[in-house]
Amino acid sequence: MALSVAVLAGGVGAARFLEGLVRVVPAENVTVIGNTGDDLELHGLAICPDLDTVTYTLAGLSDPERGWGLANESFHALDALRKFSEDTWFQLGDRDLATHIFRSSLLRSGFPLSEVTVRVTRALGIASKLLPMSDNTVRTWLDTEIGQLDFQTYFVKTRAEPEVRGVEFVGANEASPAPGVLDAIMQADAVIIAPSNPIISVGPILAVPGIRDALRETSAPVVAVSPIVGGQAVKGPAAAMMTSLGHGASATAVAGLYEDFLNIFVLDEVDADSEAAVEELGMRVVVCPTMMTGMPEKEALARVVMEAAAS
Amino acid sequence: MALSVAVLAGGVGAARFLEGLVRVVPAENVTVIGNTGDDLELHGLAICPDLDTVTYTLAGLSDPERGWGLANESFHALDALRKFSEDTWFQLGDRDLATHIFRSSLLRSGFPLSEVTVRVTRALGIASKLLPMSDNTVRTWLDTEIGQLDFQTYFVKTRAEPEVRGVEFVGANEASPAPGVLDAIMQADAVIIAPSNPIISVGPILAVPGIRDALRETSAPVVAVSPIVGGQAVKGPAAAMMTSLGHGASATAVAGLYEDFLNIFVLDEVDADSEAAVEELGMRVVVCPTMMTGMPEKEALARVVMEAAAS
Repeated sequence: MALSVAVLAGGVGAARFLEGLVRVVPAENVTVIGNTGDDLELHGLAICPDLDTVTYTLAGLSDPERGWGLANESFHALDALRKFSEDTWFQLGDRDLATHIFRSSLLRSGFPLSEVTVRVTRALGIASKLLPMSDNTVRTWLDTEIGQLDFQTYFVKTRAEPEVRGVEFVGANEASPAPGVLDAIMQADAVIIAPSNPIISVGPILAVPGIRDALRETSAPVVAVSPIVGGQAVKGPAAAMMTSLGHGASATAVAGLYEDFLNIFVLDEVDADSEAAVEELGMRVVVCPTMMTGMPEKEALARVVMEAAAS
Repeated sequence: MALSVAVLAGGVGAARFLEGLVRVVPAENVTVIGNTGDDLELHGLAICPDLDTVTYTLAGLSDPERGWGLANESFHALDALRKFSEDTWFQLGDRDLATHIFRSSLLRSGFPLSEVTVRVTRALGIASKLLPMSDNTVRTWLDTEIGQLDFQTYFVKTRAEPEVRGVEFVGANEASPAPGVLDAIMQADAVIIAPSNPIISVGPILAVPGIRDALRETSAPVVAVSPIVGGQAVKGPAAAMMTSLGHGASATAVAGLYEDFLNIFVLDEVDADSEAAVEELGMRVVVCPTMMTGMPEKEALARVVMEAAAS
């Protein structure tokens, strides 16, 4: 299967799916369109958590336990930083810092994020192409029961505990897709929405004008893997957020959010009874095991997705 | 001796002297005027090697073997940076990076270096006041046999090996002393020129308009400790540089460079035979052991200097 594949990706869930995908499709045929709504500037450093999670995972450098950050990481710089700053709630590993320092330096020199990302991924030996959704700044803000929070404050500092009442992608309306993003979607043989939080991981990507239209217009089949299994998020606050925002915490609700462009929805076996409801949204359903507990499971899921797209 | 003391300081030699001085004079009575001609920007980080050497040493955090950097330091971030950049010849420790990240962030927010330095030294618990010679950018460039080199390229990358034919302090003419520098010199009970390289450590400080005049005008005695002992630099390239620039590598030549403002010159015992020559320059000479091999020696030297200033 030497098909060209475009993947809309958030962080950890997407990265795990991609690990399997690049074992089923040649890695160089995969273009990942990454969420940058989670990005933050801290201590003057430009940090792109989702892009880096994908990068480190595809480079085989990620910490397998945590999912984020690098394996065998140390935090000496962060410890030293505590003497200077209160803003040390965001975990910055020593090796991880090198990425942020390099990226920040290039951005400040005027390079767009897409070009910086090419350099980072190339330096780490990644064969797939990773594109930020946009070179413009888009920031996810959450309207929560304790007030407006930027994404990382919500996600890391308050551990995603406050109830979310609304989500805003600040800057999205004025943003353009990064160079290559629309082409990747339009020219792909298959487009995959990774099993990421539909609200805050895929949502920011879809909010960049032009991307959702491209998903509707591409002749490639668009396949999504449900990040909600048995009413629970595989990881993170997706289920609680879907509920508090009134969508309901179900795989069917996720499919509903993608209804206007999705052709195929991959449901976990435990949600087999939702098949009819999802089909009523006008899309095909594939039921299979979706829990990516190990590499065989990741690879098997990717194979099912690619086969569904090809049929 | 609760005298107020101002010290013009370079890096390692000055820091060692200061360690002794703050054991003889209350640390809070000491104002250090630090060289920033060695500063560099690398990977977008503002690095102030001499200020940091003084800071880390006075904080008791410096590496006792190397003289620069922090004790028990690791270099994981730098190792990771090697994947991205060729510019990894400057040793940036993980803990040290925290200082540069914090400083760079504040500078970018608009704080002047003097204010940033207050915050850094306060965070590390230093009782003495450390002032950069200027809040303006001054950069030491060396005209060498292999071309024009900025200070750190010369000092670190080429290990101070190329013969130096000229020295320029770019930006010095347009620079102003940082707030407090002139007052510290004018209001001190004693001014000390630390045993630092007169060309490239003390030289940049003296090149900032107003500082040399203040040294000439202050009613405080100005005392220098020779960094050249027996025709050799105690540390670094001072002797070779003095020779190639035509000054000659001797304690007497150092005294000659400070002739217009110096009242007392502290000579090492091995240079006792230079006493007359230095006195002919119109200054008093004190001969004593100046090699700061341990804390007792550092303290003894500081005591001699303070006693000379008081008499």
